[in-house]
Amino acid sequence: MTVPIIIGVDLGATNIEAAAVRDGEILKSKKKKTRPEKGIEAVLDRIEKTIRTVFEKMDAEASDFSAICIGAPGAVEEETGIVRSAPNLGWDNVPLGEALHDRFGIPVMVDNDVNVGVVGEHVHGAGKGALDMIGIFVGTGIGGGLIIDGAPHHGWRGAAGEIGHVIVKPHGRTCGCGRDGCVEAYASKTAMEAIIHEEMEKGRETEVFEIMEDKGKKKLTSSVIEASLEAEDLLMEEVLQNAQYYLGILTANLVNVLDPEIIVYGGGVVERLGESFLKPIERTARQHYLQRRGAEQIRIVPAELGDDAGPVGAAVVAQRRLRASVG
Amino acid sequence: MTVPIIIGVDLGATNIEAAAVRDGEILKSKKKKTRPEKGIEAVLDRIEKTIRTVFEKMDAEASDFSAICIGAPGAVEEETGIVRSAPNLGWDNVPLGEALHDRFGIPVMVDNDVNVGVVGEHVHGAGKGALDMIGIFVGTGIGGGLIIDGAPHHGWRGAAGEIGHVIVKPHGRTCGCGRDGCVEAYASKTAMEAIIHEEMEKGRETEVFEIMEDKGKKKLTSSVIEASLEAEDLLMEEVLQNAQYYLGILTANLVNVLDPEIIVYGGGVVERLGESFLKPIERTARQHYLQRRGAEQIRIVPAELGDDAGPVGAAVVAQRRLRASVG
Repeated sequence: MTVPIIIGVDLGATNIEAAAVRDGEILKSKKKKTRPEKGIEAVLDRIEKTIRTVFEKMDAEASDFSAICIGAPGAVEEETGIVRSAPNLGWDNVPLGEALHDRFGIPVMVDNDVNVGVVGEHVHGAGKGALDMIGIFVGTGIGGGLIIDGAPHHGWRGAAGEIGHVIVKPHGRTCGCGRDGCVEAYASKTAMEAIIHEEMEKGRETEVFEIMEDKGKKKLTSSVIEASLEAEDLLMEEVLQNAQYYLGILTANLVNVLDPEIIVYGGGVVERLGESFLKPIERTARQHYLQRRGAEQIRIVPAELGDDAGPVGAAVVAQRRLRASVG
Repeated sequence: MTVPIIIGVDLGATNIEAAAVRDGEILKSKKKKTRPEKGIEAVLDRIEKTIRTVFEKMDAEASDFSAICIGAPGAVEEETGIVRSAPNLGWDNVPLGEALHDRFGIPVMVDNDVNVGVVGEHVHGAGKGALDMIGIFVGTGIGGGLIIDGAPHHGWRGAAGEIGHVIVKPHGRTCGCGRDGCVEAYASKTAMEAIIHEEMEKGRETEVFEIMEDKGKKKLTSSVIEASLEAEDLLMEEVLQNAQYYLGILTANLVNVLDPEIIVYGGGVVERLGESFLKPIERTARQHYLQRRGAEQIRIVPAELGDDAGPVGAAVVAQRRLRASVG
């Protein structure tokens, strides 16, 4: 039996990345802007075009691939391929799986983007070989996924891994979800930008917004954070330390509850800042979880696959589901 | 094949309970005081006596039983039957499994008492039929256990389920573990008593310590809490509400991370106060976890087996291990 080649797709609010993947290796890939503001049909067209470009690069057609698997940024109903809710795309109840199946005629699987990325890091990235792993992705929001006894843990309703909404400070800052004190309200890029803005309004000095303008960015990106730290912006340093502190508390709590072998941190901020971002998180975490039975051996490491975690993980998810359906 | 009869034992800091269990049903049982202050050998003798009394009640001898399984209050190495650390007994590295095997000559299994109780509630109690369950026990400390995909989740080091040390208030009260802000530092009986004491020293009025004395108790027991609430002691009410609030935050965080079908609350306080203790926890929890995909269907319920959860769960653990070892 030959190893199947699968089209793995990562659908983000900013970019679509599609790749032909064989056994964790990306053979060819293509990235396009998502442009969700143009509407659902336009996004579906852009996904199709991105995939067809990969076909061309492979000198192949749809029937040469075993399946398409796409990770979408929101709540997904895996059985039907419907994206129930993807706030960053402005999507509600979009039959993404069906739409792509109509366009390509081969099996299409849909899953949550973070779940898929965590599977990618587990099978082919930083978590290789671990039975119990937690993936934490720091970006515009904070996402996560759990690998328990070697398999993704989806939970009773398929809603497990909502670690961005773990409350780390009761009665704390209001989060985008409407609740107070979620870790996402301190440590996401969106939150860090809002906190810097609030502090500036209170009279604190900062160069962050000038740096943002100089770089032609409309929001606090990972590169703006990096440049602000290089400029030794005290407010940026303080806000980042605060974010790291609460991520450390989150990490400690997850260790005490789940006892994982490895915690993999990914997402734009981690990729940009690397170990210097993780070290303070690790320090706080180790101060706050129980030091028993080899606790010092728990690893807290950066993700290895970067943007490829999505397509590579999607290909793994597709292979597993193909196997499960053939019997 | 006949259903095996197993001796399930719950070894607590206060009591030893042993029972002959067949398929979740307690046939005969015996309870004795533990008296850990008399030393390890004395406790081992008391365990032996408790078990031998059950033998007598059953008109049977050791060889009539398939195994003895004992839940111990601390860190247990299941493979060797060694109790690595049980602070409430003052035990370090006690070869409990070997000691009992020497005395009875039948297979002996040792596990953590909370894990065993959670298994009991899952298989024969409030969690029957659930694939994903969290057990939370509120007593002198706060213990917990996770059932994931139908089986206990022990974690990489066998240290999962340390939910008493989930930090619910960074920089909060100092916990017995030495860290600050653990839920156990607010919601265990030990913590509640300490908080009432602190507040009294600051000049707050309370009848709690008089009630304790009237009842001949040396510490804040569940019955003292109940009597203090009946006496409408405002400080007791406030401290209990605070405990319930943090247990609610803990519960919400566990729901967001694990997405369980059911959360089972057990332990002395829950048994004594029942639904009136759980309702405020449930209210806070529901306010603090994401309301998506049927979140309203998650059940938060009291344990059903009471003190029997230990022996009954121990019998389940024994049956599973017997099966695993026979092949």
